[in-house]
Amino acid sequence: MLTRIDHVGIACRDLEEKIAFYAETFGLSVASRETHAEQGVREAMLVVADAPAGASYVQLLEPLSPDTPVGRFIERRGEGIHHVGYGVADITSALASIGATGVRLLDSRPRHGSMGAAIAFLHPADIGGVLTELVQAPGGQ
Amino acid sequence: MLTRIDHVGIACRDLEEKIAFYAETFGLSVASRETHAEQGVREAMLVVADAPAGASYVQLLEPLSPDTPVGRFIERRGEGIHHVGYGVADITSALASIGATGVRLLDSRPRHGSMGAAIAFLHPADIGGVLTELVQAPGGQ
Repeated sequence: MLTRIDHVGIACRDLEEKIAFYAETFGLSVASRETHAEQGVREAMLVVADAPAGASYVQLLEPLSPDTPVGRFIERRGEGIHHVGYGVADITSALASIGATGVRLLDSRPRHGSMGAAIAFLHPADIGGVLTELVQAPGGQ
Repeated sequence: MLTRIDHVGIACRDLEEKIAFYAETFGLSVASRETHAEQGVREAMLVVADAPAGASYVQLLEPLSPDTPVGRFIERRGEGIHHVGYGVADITSALASIGATGVRLLDSRPRHGSMGAAIAFLHPADIGGVLTELVQAPGGQ
């Protein structure tokens, strides 16, 4: 069902500062910058690697305000790893299969994510405290 | 420098229960089980995907006792994502390069990790709260 680790989502206070840090320290470069007002974040996708099953990214997330999910996460726990996103070839089928096991779906239907992907989040309380995202890249995977 | 997201390390209270959960929910299977007494953990590597640059895993970590790094993590924050591991082709060269940028190295020299890999951890306080591991798989990558 899972095709790859699509990305690790990292909450930060200053997106531009962290983009520069990841470029200098690890040599990563930005593939995309987007603002998702409905999620309350500005974000950047930094390419770690490309592969036949699709690329893997570090996703840096800066909250648009303290009163957003990522803003509250930073307030509560500080900057750090916020979630993990796994690639899937067919997100609708994956959601049906996972939902049938009893895991609660935060998104019962896919919605628009970074770089044209279809995404859906699963409830962290049902996955051992791990906020888990499914990602179907454009064209599948 | 980075070749892939090698793994996401997830702290859990009950390794066997979580292995069964990831198998049932996401179809992942165990590639390796190991106990690392010096790290204070029992762990399992679950294969997410294979790729030319090397495989990617979910690494489940159960503390051997409360008074271990992963035990204290769970006590403080609950179960959840503990760290991220990136693949590198040459860990000695990567440590030298990263250390030169001012990031503190928790391991100044590589040590033995899961599945025969050479690993080293970087200081989370210098990487925006992200405990970051470098992984050179046997034979490079």
